[in-house]
Amino acid sequence: MTYQTTLEIATPGRATIDITAAVNDAVAASGLHCGLAHVFVQHTSCSLTITENADPDVRRDLETVMARLAPDGDPAYRHDAEGPDDMAAHVRSMLTAAGLSVPVGGGRLLLGTWQGIYLWEHRSAPHRRRLVVTVLGS
Amino acid sequence: MTYQTTLEIATPGRATIDITAAVNDAVAASGLHCGLAHVFVQHTSCSLTITENADPDVRRDLETVMARLAPDGDPAYRHDAEGPDDMAAHVRSMLTAAGLSVPVGGGRLLLGTWQGIYLWEHRSAPHRRRLVVTVLGS
Amino acid sequence: MTYQTTLEIATPGRATIDITAAVNDAVAASGLHCGLAHVFVQHTSCSLTITENADPDVRRDLETVMARLAPDGDPAYRHDAEGPDDMAAHVRSMLTAAGLSVPVGGGRLLLGTWQGIYLWEHRSAPHRRRLVVTVLGS
Repeated sequence: MTYQTTLEIATPGRATIDITAAVNDAVAASGLHCGLAHVFVQHTSCSLTITENADPDVRRDLETVMARLAPDGDPAYRHDAEGPDDMAAHVRSMLTAAGLSVPVGGGRLLLGTWQGIYLWEHRSAPHRRRLVVTVLGS
Repeated sequence: MTYQTTLEIATPGRATIDITAAVNDAVAASGLHCGLAHVFVQHTSCSLTITENADPDVRRDLETVMARLAPDGDPAYRHDAEGPDDMAAHVRSMLTAAGLSVPVGGGRLLLGTWQGIYLWEHRSAPHRRRLVVTVLGS
Repeated sequence: MTYQTTLEIATPGRATIDITAAVNDAVAASGLHCGLAHVFVQHTSCSLTITENADPDVRRDLETVMARLAPDGDPAYRHDAEGPDDMAAHVRSMLTAAGLSVPVGGGRLLLGTWQGIYLWEHRSAPHRRRLVVTVLGS
């Protein structure tokens, strides 16, 4: 059995947005009990990550590290058509991922207690982001 | 067809643990011949990676690089509730992944000759880690 | 339903090779309309990424960043059996991924307008790379 739906998420600019509940809603709508839920962003300047959902400082620290690994306005970048955060966003997307899969069991996401699924907006300006959620299983 | 099982792996603290055989056992138990095997850690301070399985220096060098990209006790971290390796572990998890999929063919993992699947413990202390293996296919 | 095929791609040495059309061909050959397409490299010194497909400077800049995060001939590496690019290639593989999944809908990959799937050769010399494409769905 296969179920697929799309989500549209408005982002406030660079930030991590918890989409766990929205993905769990898609799993519930699928009616599937056991399998995989796959989430995918149709963009190259935002991405997905699973990280700690309790202390917001964790996500703040992830941003701090990313600012070091992929700084805005790096003079080494050639691609800066859309501003200093343009290429930094592509690097951050490459270091994380456009898609991820989470196991489904008992009709819900089998996440650990401290795991949340985050849409990570890497651009400075607000964007509308389109995601595809696919649930496969039985 | 869908098959799902859990693994519990004891880690000795920061290290890479070869779980290829355990995942192959799950694939064999599934009875499925062709499809995908997905492995997922239910934690945010360990992760999964596929890398070279022959020379242990490769994994030692991966640790060396990680120590540079995500050092323990970085003064820039705000989140340090569980010690200097706490936030470093979340960063290392973000730079790798909580889950990965490997194709299944002929009833076994279609890994290359030099590929192994590793559970990467990022915390200094030993932990018991829970993994979910899901096999989808026919 | 499950469909699986292999691709063999000749690389010119370190470079990003657009494999989007080849993966879309596999999806078309599968006859599946809705589900997931999974691509996997059976190697640990090349990897896969999804990034911007319009301006080649984006991929050049990704190489620039990787040369910083995983330099060739780093004196800290122990593993250098195959030359200064050997361990750098394993690090770059670890920071990206051996496999990725893309949703399939209407019988084709549901990529965003600016997304391309790239095989990223991390070794300096040309290689023949073997990929497994698995399509699951209905």
